[in-house]
Amino acid sequence: MSNTAYATPASINGVDVATLFATLDAVKGQNEIAKFQFRAENTWQTGTHSRSRIHGFYGAGQELTHTHETVLDADHPVVLTGADHAPTPVEYLLHALAACLTAGIANIASARGVKLTKVTSTVEGDIDLLGILGLSDGSVRNGYQGIRVEFDIEGDADDETLRGIVEQSRRRSAVYDVLTNPTPVSVSVVTG
Amino acid sequence: MSNTAYATPASINGVDVATLFATLDAVKGQNEIAKFQFRAENTWQTGTHSRSRIHGFYGAGQELTHTHETVLDADHPVVLTGADHAPTPVEYLLHALAACLTAGIANIASARGVKLTKVTSTVEGDIDLLGILGLSDGSVRNGYQGIRVEFDIEGDADDETLRGIVEQSRRRSAVYDVLTNPTPVSVSVVTG
Repeated sequence: MSNTAYATPASINGVDVATLFATLDAVKGQNEIAKFQFRAENTWQTGTHSRSRIHGFYGAGQELTHTHETVLDADHPVVLTGADHAPTPVEYLLHALAACLTAGIANIASARGVKLTKVTSTVEGDIDLLGILGLSDGSVRNGYQGIRVEFDIEGDADDETLRGIVEQSRRRSAVYDVLTNPTPVSVSVVTG
Repeated sequence: MSNTAYATPASINGVDVATLFATLDAVKGQNEIAKFQFRAENTWQTGTHSRSRIHGFYGAGQELTHTHETVLDADHPVVLTGADHAPTPVEYLLHALAACLTAGIANIASARGVKLTKVTSTVEGDIDLLGILGLSDGSVRNGYQGIRVEFDIEGDADDETLRGIVEQSRRRSAVYDVLTNPTPVSVSVVTG
């Protein structure tokens, strides 16, 4: 980190680059600490309304907790016979995608010494409900038929460099991977 | 709906079953109204912290808005050099999955005349960060290696009926589909 007088600043874009590289070095030396498990606990409220709590997780070889517990609601809109207490489950996927790509952009820009001044994104997902309503002959899937993310990014680098940062974030994004590639999901049931 | 004196009650589990069936009939008669588009607008804050706003969407042939706008934050935990202002993007995927399956369970149980008294779930996702950190030889993916959902469900039906409701919800879940099957995602960039 400090081999030259022109070392990367300790912090840029709110990212502590020294700690970021130290973390990478630590994981290189001990791969086991890269194994994480994230969790959510969900409780049905009424109708299509449910509530999740997110607090504990496992990582870096230990049980950890977030600084504070987060409570997230979800519901269906009125037009889909819900009570619209909160966003739909599929809208949370769009937030997750934008947030994952954006965090990656901040980390990668910082590692490359690029100061960002603006990163905004719009995410749109198209879904044909004939699938989930069981009204398709099988040709319409249940989920999104396609998702589009458009980034607007500004910083002290040229167009090509900024685009390269977004592209590297896409290549390393956990959420992008889960959405674009199959992820094994098991569902088990205990009845009362 | 009211062909017999023993018709399904108008509302069960907080689900307006009459409206649910009417919605199905309306979509059967006019498939076009099943086309929806959901959206999120995300703005980078600092470091790995970003914030999404969810409000407008398209569906049932018109531009619509949720009853209220929802603001969602995301961040990385301190152990991943974030400031832990909020859950990680990948944790939002777990909430989305639990919420989608649970909303489906409520709708399907209601359509089948089963009164639910409890639906809780725990979702766990395993992820090896060697992928996103770029420290893998390519064998470790960026996203979850596997996700497990465990439901605890109680209601006025036997074990087999309750398990059948969960299974039907899984088969019709939009989020389950997006996670377990590939979804096309495009990322475009505008630079300042």
